[in-house]
Amino acid sequence: MRIQNKHYTSIWLTDEDELQIIDQTKLPYQFEIATLKSNSDVCRAISSMQVRGAGLIGVTAGYGVYLIAKNFPKQKNWKQYMREECDKLLKTRPTAKNLSYALEQQTKIWQNAAHDEALPKLRKKALELAREDIDFCKRIGEHGKEIIAKIAQRKNGQPVNILTHCNAGWLAFTDYGSALSPVYTAFNENIPVHVFVDETRPRNQGASLTAFELAEQDVPHTLIADNVGGHLMQHGMVDLVLVGADRVTRSGDTANKIGTYLKALAAHDNHVPFYVALPSSTFDFSLYDGVKEIVIEERNARETEYVTGYYHNADKEKLIQEVRICPEKTKGLNFAFDVTPHTLITGLITERGITEANEKAISTLYPEAKKFIQ
Amino acid sequence: MRIQNKHYTSIWLTDEDELQIIDQTKLPYQFEIATLKSNSDVCRAISSMQVRGAGLIGVTAGYGVYLIAKNFPKQKNWKQYMREECDKLLKTRPTAKNLSYALEQQTKIWQNAAHDEALPKLRKKALELAREDIDFCKRIGEHGKEIIAKIAQRKNGQPVNILTHCNAGWLAFTDYGSALSPVYTAFNENIPVHVFVDETRPRNQGASLTAFELAEQDVPHTLIADNVGGHLMQHGMVDLVLVGADRVTRSGDTANKIGTYLKALAAHDNHVPFYVALPSSTFDFSLYDGVKEIVIEERNARETEYVTGYYHNADKEKLIQEVRICPEKTKGLNFAFDVTPHTLITGLITERGITEANEKAISTLYPEAKKFIQ
Repeated sequence: MRIQNKHYTSIWLTDEDELQIIDQTKLPYQFEIATLKSNSDVCRAISSMQVRGAGLIGVTAGYGVYLIAKNFPKQKNWKQYMREECDKLLKTRPTAKNLSYALEQQTKIWQNAAHDEALPKLRKKALELAREDIDFCKRIGEHGKEIIAKIAQRKNGQPVNILTHCNAGWLAFTDYGSALSPVYTAFNENIPVHVFVDETRPRNQGASLTAFELAEQDVPHTLIADNVGGHLMQHGMVDLVLVGADRVTRSGDTANKIGTYLKALAAHDNHVPFYVALPSSTFDFSLYDGVKEIVIEERNARETEYVTGYYHNADKEKLIQEVRICPEKTKGLNFAFDVTPHTLITGLITERGITEANEKAISTLYPEAKKFIQ
Repeated sequence: MRIQNKHYTSIWLTDEDELQIIDQTKLPYQFEIATLKSNSDVCRAISSMQVRGAGLIGVTAGYGVYLIAKNFPKQKNWKQYMREECDKLLKTRPTAKNLSYALEQQTKIWQNAAHDEALPKLRKKALELAREDIDFCKRIGEHGKEIIAKIAQRKNGQPVNILTHCNAGWLAFTDYGSALSPVYTAFNENIPVHVFVDETRPRNQGASLTAFELAEQDVPHTLIADNVGGHLMQHGMVDLVLVGADRVTRSGDTANKIGTYLKALAAHDNHVPFYVALPSSTFDFSLYDGVKEIVIEERNARETEYVTGYYHNADKEKLIQEVRICPEKTKGLNFAFDVTPHTLITGLITERGITEANEKAISTLYPEAKKFIQ
């Protein structure tokens, strides 16, 4: 994707084999690239959300395992060291399936090879995971675009109004994104689109990341508070809701950024199609009932009590400032995700195509889910 | 209500007959009292939300008409002057019924009396409107407390968890509040309560006003982002949703702060009782279908693009700062209210008692609604 007309992915290995990321905690205020040199750098980047988004967390973990192996102190026991360090990575964030997906694939390599043999294979697999992520997102874009194109046919040249929550764009993956990939594909094919961007408190990934992405690609968009979507849907102002996912069960129950469930309820109540876009790395076929079974991360309450933004001082300097929005005595509570039951979901847009959100349809498109069906 | 253990109402006439308010745009950062000397002061106070909340807007308008009359330039035509100035007041904010309720009552006075005769009557009516507001809210508290007490019976001493949206406390009225009045009444009778306070973007009346009120009265409460309520309800963490209202039709359709509808959907989906608390001054019996008929105010997009909060600088000074949360190129859209259809509402808590939210039940409790039923 483009930032100031230069092409970027959200993570990459440099020619000097250094792992670099766009520091997403600084967006949209500052565009800063950070270099991750050790596993503790990688763990901090994931838990502090310098990198975030299901796909990017997974790809970062894939590279992380390569970094761990690269920094192997020869005096240590290889497998014990790898297990301990990979465990740290696994514990950074609990909800996104992609993290364990990437770790499982890398683990197969280091468990079955000594350091010298494993190292180039781990590098190769990390790059493969990133390429797969890009490829899956690109295909999600192509499948999802068809939904937008169909709505566009009955809009007589008026833009298709798409509401999205949080950031499921290229910053949440390596490139393209999941929910925003169909939007970019449609936009690039001159299908008129307009995106309502949910602010997405408390971390404001909508206001800071989705708005940034869309602004940089010149996609028409409007920022709304998280409270507004229901009203827009009641008044016919939304044609389609497109969101990403952090973990999706074999029934189609979807963990995604907190607040997604509320938008799904409103879409259902107003007959607005509600689609979840995800690469297969986000599926957790071992689970059925998302509300009961998916572990929901509780993050620091501080994120609820404060907001970060920027302002210009008297000298016109742009300053970033975190401000407290509630009394000193008041404490916050901060669940990072919620689960949207599959009965509220019109369909899932995957790299293999679009499926209804139920066990039968999902296991038809993904036969590998069948072994989990009792 | 108490602020730092001193009793306040949210608006009052001083011994010198000056109209004073608590400047709510400064809360919870600073406690400042403002004096309103002219109708343009009053109009600015309402439209800039120094005073806000259905009840307080109405009471402020009642006092406003008295101020208009007090400032009558004798060379002008009395009725023409009053009509022009009252029209300015009416246009400050469109959604809350209480504004027109107060103006209608004052208009009857100035239309039927010359300046000298009208002036003391307008003052008396303004005070009456304020006293009625207090009285209605107190009675709402007593009726609503019964609902909380009933839930408390099955909680074995555990607190009743009440979710509220925006601020429908004493700051939204003259005293007590609507949705928070039952909470205060229950709390004062030692029924254990705990309030989940929705932040309520974009103006953050939950984080800044409801949290402030509850903190000052020592009521246990927790701040949550507007996105969180659905998740809490899915997991049995909310026993009751209590919200206020800006305009309620004779069917029970309720205009309230934007985002209320989303919480009502979640409450309905999870069988959590959802009550709207309102004094009769908020009813608009002339309307039936709230989604189609209630005018929803669109406010400045800036409120969506910015957040105001406070921080401490290096010298430990407390500074208020407005920060921008999205890219420069991104524009916001800011609807201030949405409408919750009555089918999602368990009941209405009014000064006359609790009623189901439908035309038949409402017109039984309020026979004055019957003349509007076709």
